[in-house]
Amino acid sequence: MTDAIGVFDSGLGGLTVLRELIAAFPNENFLYLGDTARLPYGSKSPDVILRYTQQNIQFLLKKNVKAIVVACNSASSVLKEEHKWSVPVFNVITPGARKALEVSQTKRIGILGTRATIASRAYNHRILKQDLNVDLFEQACPLFVPLAEEGLDLDPITNLIAFRYIHPLLEQKIDTLILGCTHYPLLKGSIQRVTQSAITLVDSGSAVAAVLEDAFQKGELQKNNSSAAGSIHILTSDFSEHFQSLAKQIIGGNIIQKTEVVQIL
Amino acid sequence: MTDAIGVFDSGLGGLTVLRELIAAFPNENFLYLGDTARLPYGSKSPDVILRYTQQNIQFLLKKNVKAIVVACNSASSVLKEEHKWSVPVFNVITPGARKALEVSQTKRIGILGTRATIASRAYNHRILKQDLNVDLFEQACPLFVPLAEEGLDLDPITNLIAFRYIHPLLEQKIDTLILGCTHYPLLKGSIQRVTQSAITLVDSGSAVAAVLEDAFQKGELQKNNSSAAGSIHILTSDFSEHFQSLAKQIIGGNIIQKTEVVQIL
Repeated sequence: MTDAIGVFDSGLGGLTVLRELIAAFPNENFLYLGDTARLPYGSKSPDVILRYTQQNIQFLLKKNVKAIVVACNSASSVLKEEHKWSVPVFNVITPGARKALEVSQTKRIGILGTRATIASRAYNHRILKQDLNVDLFEQACPLFVPLAEEGLDLDPITNLIAFRYIHPLLEQKIDTLILGCTHYPLLKGSIQRVTQSAITLVDSGSAVAAVLEDAFQKGELQKNNSSAAGSIHILTSDFSEHFQSLAKQIIGGNIIQKTEVVQIL
Repeated sequence: MTDAIGVFDSGLGGLTVLRELIAAFPNENFLYLGDTARLPYGSKSPDVILRYTQQNIQFLLKKNVKAIVVACNSASSVLKEEHKWSVPVFNVITPGARKALEVSQTKRIGILGTRATIASRAYNHRILKQDLNVDLFEQACPLFVPLAEEGLDLDPITNLIAFRYIHPLLEQKIDTLILGCTHYPLLKGSIQRVTQSAITLVDSGSAVAAVLEDAFQKGELQKNNSSAAGSIHILTSDFSEHFQSLAKQIIGGNIIQKTEVVQIL
């Protein structure tokens, strides 16, 4: 499938980004790669995450994608500007940081992420580069990825864990909360039980869709000329029925043309 | 370090086995490998777990170990008798199954494990091969490994999750419960809150130590002749301060001579 947009994550999380991209660009072809044989990324070191990220990008480049969306905050947090590729590579942190700055009124912003993303301070650097008068409050949420991979949104256990992670940020009177991991929208029910409606949630999917729209407008990326619905292929580095069934729930089973298990190395 | 006993797991769990082995064989040298760059194993497919297991065994063989303990139930569950190696390779499932049969009075035995271990039915096969008059009750506990890796024993959240996993087995009137994952002894406090003292817990560490003692007695494995305390080296495939600090808590920091990050492939 040439001319597709490649999207990758360690597992299910990136599907929340893919879902937004399909809604925004229904005529585009998408090739999704879930590195389920090595998931999760967020508990691993920057060196290991960067190695896996580069391998995933190389894998997608060989499939002749026209652009790549790194639909994983932990992977995005280790990518540096000096990393150059033969096609545009979009991370999810820059768009999320920009959107949080746009929507926050009080400039008190919370950031949830994996241990790796929070330790990288990638959101902090990008936000403070644009506006030094912002107060940032971070929280690593190491149990959220396993809970999302288990499909446990709105489970009492997830509600309890969400309260523990998020309550300290509410005490800091944030008005905006960045869901700094693409898995976290899969726990939106439990997260919103804690934040209620007063807090604006920023997720990576819609933020990166806006950046891609920009790139299309500016001609940095060519639109697919077909007026037919684009094709959706899902590749994973391990087979799991559990993944397949949750993927169908997230994306809609009837629009996935093909699923395949691949070896990345 | 030649003539060491190699021990491996995906992460921290196997350290509960190593702890028992050090206590039982204080003069032996041990070389521990934690495949933290690819952890966890228990959510992955048999094909992927077998590939990683074979790579870990090859890695340890190159270090000239005299025996290997597969200190991970998910890895043990994919090893078959036809897999032959140049040194003795001990799994943790056969010893755990044998011990559960020894200690159970009512022959009603519960099995906790990862999704992979439970799906493999490895405990069931080994137990029923020895005694068909046993009633077995299984429960996959996918959130236990992340909770153990976070060091959250006796946390209210862990207590709640332990209750959910274990209570249905108590209703089946089991008298013995196999902790069929080497991470689970790290949550023994929360597990015992649910099981209370009436239920005997069987963990892999002490069970496999008894099997190694047998092998020494029978001369299938040569004892280290030194009367000095053996050396303990810890290798991991990723660096993590979090791992290092929990490893010291589990094993005792002062007896670890060396820690090193290695690439398995």
